[in-house]
Amino acid sequence: MAQNDTVKVIGSWSSPFALRARVALHLKSVKYEYLDEPYVLKSKSELLIKSNPIHKKVPVLIHGDVSICESLNIVQYVDEAWPSDPSILPSQPYDRASARFWAQYVDDKCFGSLDAVAGAKDDEGRKAAAGKLMECLGILEETFQKSSKGLGFFGGENIGYIDIACGTLLGPISVIEAFSGVKFLQEETTPGLMKWAERFRTHEAVNPYMPSVEELVAFAKQKFSIQ
Amino acid sequence: MAQNDTVKVIGSWSSPFALRARVALHLKSVKYEYLDEPYVLKSKSELLIKSNPIHKKVPVLIHGDVSICESLNIVQYVDEAWPSDPSILPSQPYDRASARFWAQYVDDKCFGSLDAVAGAKDDEGRKAAAGKLMECLGILEETFQKSSKGLGFFGGENIGYIDIACGTLLGPISVIEAFSGVKFLQEETTPGLMKWAERFRTHEAVNPYMPSVEELVAFAKQKFSIQ
Repeated sequence: MAQNDTVKVIGSWSSPFALRARVALHLKSVKYEYLDEPYVLKSKSELLIKSNPIHKKVPVLIHGDVSICESLNIVQYVDEAWPSDPSILPSQPYDRASARFWAQYVDDKCFGSLDAVAGAKDDEGRKAAAGKLMECLGILEETFQKSSKGLGFFGGENIGYIDIACGTLLGPISVIEAFSGVKFLQEETTPGLMKWAERFRTHEAVNPYMPSVEELVAFAKQKFSIQ
Repeated sequence: MAQNDTVKVIGSWSSPFALRARVALHLKSVKYEYLDEPYVLKSKSELLIKSNPIHKKVPVLIHGDVSICESLNIVQYVDEAWPSDPSILPSQPYDRASARFWAQYVDDKCFGSLDAVAGAKDDEGRKAAAGKLMECLGILEETFQKSSKGLGFFGGENIGYIDIACGTLLGPISVIEAFSGVKFLQEETTPGLMKWAERFRTHEAVNPYMPSVEELVAFAKQKFSIQ
């Protein structure tokens, strides 16, 4: 266990996964030092390599003498290591299982489709991947309608685990929308998610850490050398 | 939440993931009805489709009126819904985060490599994937040496979350060993895991649900139409 209480986060301003760690810590009012890992291919900081030797990826939460890696894992750790309110995961076993299920769905299926859209080799592949992403968002819309009960967030009136998981989709989706001209979040197909997205972006625990669409688009252009 | 206490598991005798759910329930002494979903392509039971509409995969745990899907999610649910001893996850936040990290490593990296070995199109691809799998098992060996502290299981003297996650690798590895003639678990490279594997297979919560290598090899031959 941590022998001291210093908290650090190694993140990257453009990383949707690092955002998860920061939102969780903000919700728990945990003070921490933020260390931005510059996005430079093939050159990672010694601290990152030492504290996440397996994946060598951000985010990493350093709590005293221990490091916690993988963004959803960090969010759960934050909820358990600082158990005071607000809770990030629900309290009942079934609701917790449901939250974990949908968070995993976001990482496996939604990010899988997003990567496929971004990495498609031709128009046909891109169209198929975009269709799959739309389908995933449709499923999330249904889940949101059922689970939010008109209260604004996936788990009800407060931002929680599924919101934090899903919220990380917003940046990448807005970049893909900007490049492709296709709207993935639409009033016709995902009206609940449209309003939820605005509520999430402007939430006081999210807003300070969420880059603007313009910043993300400029970053993507630079990263992929797009004129 | 569950309005009654009936417990059912939809599994498949050859599924390493269904094994996880059964081991967890056995550890908690939970009585349940086991429903074996026959492995028939393109034909799944109505109950499976209804209770896991997103992935349509085993295992599913049906507890009263609710269904819980995804094997690691089920194991965590079982630990939380039946909180009496023995605990499956450790009690301390960092140990819990570490257990979740390694369980995810097994699903992402180890099963990813296993699938790559099984699905390789040629010898070169198979050799590369086998090397990656060896590397993953080497990392698990290191983790086992550090975390078990000579007590037999990943978390110490009792079988726990990482054991249940890793244990599901044993069946698929033994099948690939049988087909390829390559030994992935070896005295030279993974001495700790070799002994742990025997301890896991023969554990009273595992043994009744773990098919023999012969059964799995015969099943794989039938599944892939190998003479």
